[in-house]
Amino acid sequence: MRHFFEELKVLQGKLLEMSAFVEVAIQRSIAAVLQKDSNAAAEVLRNEARINQIEIEIDDYAVKLLALQQPMATDLRFIVAALKINTDLERMGDLAVNISERAKSLLEQPMIKPMIDMGHIAGLVQSMVRKSLDAFVTRDSELARSVLASDDAVDNLRTANYHELVSFMEKDPHNIKAALDLLAISRNLERIADHSTNIAEDVLFLVKGVDVRHHAEARG
Amino acid sequence: MRHFFEELKVLQGKLLEMSAFVEVAIQRSIAAVLQKDSNAAAEVLRNEARINQIEIEIDDYAVKLLALQQPMATDLRFIVAALKINTDLERMGDLAVNISERAKSLLEQPMIKPMIDMGHIAGLVQSMVRKSLDAFVTRDSELARSVLASDDAVDNLRTANYHELVSFMEKDPHNIKAALDLLAISRNLERIADHSTNIAEDVLFLVKGVDVRHHAEARG
Repeated sequence: MRHFFEELKVLQGKLLEMSAFVEVAIQRSIAAVLQKDSNAAAEVLRNEARINQIEIEIDDYAVKLLALQQPMATDLRFIVAALKINTDLERMGDLAVNISERAKSLLEQPMIKPMIDMGHIAGLVQSMVRKSLDAFVTRDSELARSVLASDDAVDNLRTANYHELVSFMEKDPHNIKAALDLLAISRNLERIADHSTNIAEDVLFLVKGVDVRHHAEARG
Repeated sequence: MRHFFEELKVLQGKLLEMSAFVEVAIQRSIAAVLQKDSNAAAEVLRNEARINQIEIEIDDYAVKLLALQQPMATDLRFIVAALKINTDLERMGDLAVNISERAKSLLEQPMIKPMIDMGHIAGLVQSMVRKSLDAFVTRDSELARSVLASDDAVDNLRTANYHELVSFMEKDPHNIKAALDLLAISRNLERIADHSTNIAEDVLFLVKGVDVRHHAEARG
């Protein structure tokens, strides 16, 4: 068996491979919406199985390390964080699939508005994803905290977007199907942001051993 | 320090306490929708903090057991399953909160249909939740498999419900806000069903050491 330090590196490498796949899936699903790119949507659907496969590999590897190495302190926290981040990444992949399906449905609807807000929300969410993963790689607790701070901005944008889309529906029933697709897309983007927040919280747990979940006062 | 066997019992006891809170939250959120019971909705919102608190306690306790006891084989699988089930239960609590908020919003809208379908979906979902938790307590892999089989039924009901509600919206724009609330409620119920499926998969991993995620063929 390899040295434990190397095995932890392998685990981190697998997580980075997973996060690369998930980041591409999110990026392509957003392109499918904003650029009406049906190839991008199809690509996300094709890559889902690969992401699911890596999730299982990472879980198995992490549990094996727990069993064989009986790690302590920071190493144990790293493996527990890896298990949690793995789950979040897989869910983010699922959400990119949902977005791609809605993007495909949108292609069949009349366009109902310039999608500036959606691009804005998507940009913010992608930046949260990037920062939470960078914070994990570099063990940067300041960067992790900045992700927590962005979560409210996404929530507020999504609320404004919700009310705008409802008024589109009320104005003309022909808008309803497209508006429902856009509502689903912004909801899925918000859930991706929530998972980035989870990852940032796991980074804080990993770096400082502090559990900041559900403690708004500690997030400042 | 107590005997390890006792500590695992304590961990299981904490998870059962958590699951009792979450089951009540789901049950009360459904009552808020079906019986238009605003007290039930308020109760769910009040109890959210308690569920979040137990989640943190369980995580801390499980990580402590991993660190101090260095468990092997079944015990290790139990603790890893506990960490995963804990996350699922907390998310189910969040979804009950979402349902309760939509129930409150629905009280201000004109009623748009007899809610037979919603009651049917809710009944199925509650039964999945119950069975997945019973399967965990009794380590019953057959019961866990029956939960996986129910997931498709919930998905199908929700799809039918979606189309019905869209047609309500298209018929009369005054229905839009209420229909959006009902869409959100059925979506949240479906996500609760998904988390029950996750728990059932964790039970199968725990009992048989088999990872059945993403393997439709193994679910039969």
